[in-house]
Amino acid sequence: MNCFINVEDLGPLDKAMAEAFEIKNDRYKYQHLGKNKTLMMIFFNNSLRTRLSTQKAAMNLGMNVIVLDVNAGAWKLETERGVIMDGDKSEHLLEAIPVMGCYCDLIGVRSFAGLTDREYDYAETVLQQFIKYSGRPVFAMETATVHPLQAFADLITIEEHKVVERPKVVLTWAPHCRALPQAVPNSFAQWMNAAPDVDFVITHPEGYELDPKFVGNARVEYDQKKAFEGADFIYAKNWSNPGVTNLADYGKITSKDMSWTVDTEHMSWTNNGKFMHCLPVRRNLIVTDDVIESPNSLVIPEAANREISCSVVIKRMLEAL
Amino acid sequence: MNCFINVEDLGPLDKAMAEAFEIKNDRYKYQHLGKNKTLMMIFFNNSLRTRLSTQKAAMNLGMNVIVLDVNAGAWKLETERGVIMDGDKSEHLLEAIPVMGCYCDLIGVRSFAGLTDREYDYAETVLQQFIKYSGRPVFAMETATVHPLQAFADLITIEEHKVVERPKVVLTWAPHCRALPQAVPNSFAQWMNAAPDVDFVITHPEGYELDPKFVGNARVEYDQKKAFEGADFIYAKNWSNPGVTNLADYGKITSKDMSWTVDTEHMSWTNNGKFMHCLPVRRNLIVTDDVIESPNSLVIPEAANREISCSVVIKRMLEAL
Amino acid sequence: MNCFINVEDLGPLDKAMAEAFEIKNDRYKYQHLGKNKTLMMIFFNNSLRTRLSTQKAAMNLGMNVIVLDVNAGAWKLETERGVIMDGDKSEHLLEAIPVMGCYCDLIGVRSFAGLTDREYDYAETVLQQFIKYSGRPVFAMETATVHPLQAFADLITIEEHKVVERPKVVLTWAPHCRALPQAVPNSFAQWMNAAPDVDFVITHPEGYELDPKFVGNARVEYDQKKAFEGADFIYAKNWSNPGVTNLADYGKITSKDMSWTVDTEHMSWTNNGKFMHCLPVRRNLIVTDDVIESPNSLVIPEAANREISCSVVIKRMLEAL
Repeated sequence: MNCFINVEDLGPLDKAMAEAFEIKNDRYKYQHLGKNKTLMMIFFNNSLRTRLSTQKAAMNLGMNVIVLDVNAGAWKLETERGVIMDGDKSEHLLEAIPVMGCYCDLIGVRSFAGLTDREYDYAETVLQQFIKYSGRPVFAMETATVHPLQAFADLITIEEHKVVERPKVVLTWAPHCRALPQAVPNSFAQWMNAAPDVDFVITHPEGYELDPKFVGNARVEYDQKKAFEGADFIYAKNWSNPGVTNLADYGKITSKDMSWTVDTEHMSWTNNGKFMHCLPVRRNLIVTDDVIESPNSLVIPEAANREISCSVVIKRMLEAL
Repeated sequence: MNCFINVEDLGPLDKAMAEAFEIKNDRYKYQHLGKNKTLMMIFFNNSLRTRLSTQKAAMNLGMNVIVLDVNAGAWKLETERGVIMDGDKSEHLLEAIPVMGCYCDLIGVRSFAGLTDREYDYAETVLQQFIKYSGRPVFAMETATVHPLQAFADLITIEEHKVVERPKVVLTWAPHCRALPQAVPNSFAQWMNAAPDVDFVITHPEGYELDPKFVGNARVEYDQKKAFEGADFIYAKNWSNPGVTNLADYGKITSKDMSWTVDTEHMSWTNNGKFMHCLPVRRNLIVTDDVIESPNSLVIPEAANREISCSVVIKRMLEAL
Repeated sequence: MNCFINVEDLGPLDKAMAEAFEIKNDRYKYQHLGKNKTLMMIFFNNSLRTRLSTQKAAMNLGMNVIVLDVNAGAWKLETERGVIMDGDKSEHLLEAIPVMGCYCDLIGVRSFAGLTDREYDYAETVLQQFIKYSGRPVFAMETATVHPLQAFADLITIEEHKVVERPKVVLTWAPHCRALPQAVPNSFAQWMNAAPDVDFVITHPEGYELDPKFVGNARVEYDQKKAFEGADFIYAKNWSNPGVTNLADYGKITSKDMSWTVDTEHMSWTNNGKFMHCLPVRRNLIVTDDVIESPNSLVIPEAANREISCSVVIKRMLEAL
């Protein structure tokens, strides 16, 4: 595996899932693979879970890890070609990327959407430059439009906690005070569509339609209550307007409807549904204290599975070196 | 050992001291204990000695180490329950703590006193949440009211440099330009009280009384000169008003009396006393250049012993996993 | 080897070069040397290549690595003696340096020139304090006046890419929007002078004369075109006024002459010359996009050789412990 961005990069999902459970059972089994190999984690944006779980996964596999926070301790990077670089950016990505590639064997990149230029974001401009110029296998640690390590961990978590063979899984929008990227719902939709035994439904206010390439054939239900009825898993997430129905709205907050906040009444509509969220979560905007602290909340097991999903991805990349 | 906050967490001091000297003699002796174990160091506040010595101790013991600066590269954390999180804090400690616990085996926490709410600080609210919610053994890397790794290193240093069986040890307040927590003098007093062969005296301006639970039966002498007479060790430290005699003064600077600065005249009152300070130290406020640079200054050996005290604590926690 | 600042610290260059190529051929050959040894990397200034390549080199050699960004997560440090420390600096270098030395076996220091006080900078005041007070071997990771890890990597790169036995190597000044230190051109000149088979020429606008102790017997040619004629290697770099001809100009920008920018016309004057720069580089100030992206550009191999030059230095220091 030379890059990890989309669900298809992982090959057959049943095989990947089997590897995940094998590694969860013995996290150090493949430690020999990482000997004298170095992972470089490059952060253009903040991180808690990704930072910690990716380091842990790489160390489980015997790797050395170098963490680079681009905006703290390094230089600001120019991303456009042809400019006279007389501003605050003292290095160009076209030099910085191959240089980073010099000192490592694998690269993880976190680079969020800017949310101002949809075309730039959805072209995954920064990630693609790493793939093109680094000379190393690259995996996404949340990029402009995807967060596959999260979606893979979510799928593992659903598999572990489902009580029916084909659970109903509902991705629901919820309100937030800041404009957030669409990376998490995009990848979650992509992975749920790829999972063989999931009845997948997306619900959100009108105008918040996700990009068709991620929605695929998923059912979209604008009535949140109807969507929740009979659900086994509620996956809550805010995202800003994806600009699908109206490009001018891209990256904007076009609804703050607090009736979408997931509370105990919402959960009462479900089939004793489990509550999921990728974290970090704004309590009492996305979800009430009661719901996130209830026995049906899976937010911590989801986070714990980030170590597992990442271990599978790094293992695959090490095997392919 | 499942937590390390107070001197009693360490059990009999003579056994702990014997382990300290054993490790100082062979720092890598217990390296097998840390294999495939990960320490997470969580900093809510700045650190030099603690950051470096704790990393070193954990690596000596064969552990992997993850360092998380909460205010640089991660999210700001909400600590109150029930609030609508629409401000600048994007994650709640109640999620963040168990998540951090997912990716490690031991946790070290640095979280200073806010110095505005005495009850909140002296309840060790942040530390207690880590103990309650992380699911991992937790040790204090200086918290609101204690700094036990420092006090343990201080005790080792006194043991190494004492020339009489029962030395007189004086904890003296000294002036400072900023309001500092009471963690260091609190723990030092607690440890000196627990040490079998120490004649312990505390001296400070009136109003600066430390919390009774740390002072215990120690002698308090308001006349600095009298306190220094015949002292074998002078342990200087500033602290802000502990709010014991007047709660409204808590965390305030109620004296800047420069006559308390430890200079050569002060040291002349002692029994050729050694000078100690936990560092960082403000020269010419706490202590003059002459005293801190004199042959009787122990500030560097004290700092070096931080690696040893921390090694004993981590070793104990690894053994108990 | 107890310190690495100048080319002579490395001993005979032919032996050092042979070690470099041996290590490049097998980067993990000396991994046993670093077992239970710790490198502390101390950054007073930002870094990308140095940060990454030095970590990589130390890990190749089996070392543990601690990275300390002094201005992020630690205290601000006082460097003058005798001051009453009641400002924003809470620790003195005279304590901080020996403390850092306590927790490691080797120290790397990055501390740039302030460019306001020539005497202070050219005395290498900060670096010399580390050498004097840390009790550990110290190497420069770019200091006020030198960047020897870069110059060593440059020499390796020239050796690898030269097509004549005695290549003509030209160090050329180029314009920049900010005042930069002279560390890179100083060390490059020093190393080229020491290299046995190099025809070395320096070219820059009048007034930009480098310090005589670094220029040595090198030829200085003020006509950039004449200097470039027949060159096999063009080494471009900006530096601020070194204050040699006029002390009052020290650290200032006294020329922004854009005719010095290295473009394809400049390169056409050479003997199919290779283009070199230490990076980070401001495109279209120092060099045009076309030249830096051309097949004759060596900027990435130069950066890659930073891992090699640093490995030799660390290996030598470990052997001497």
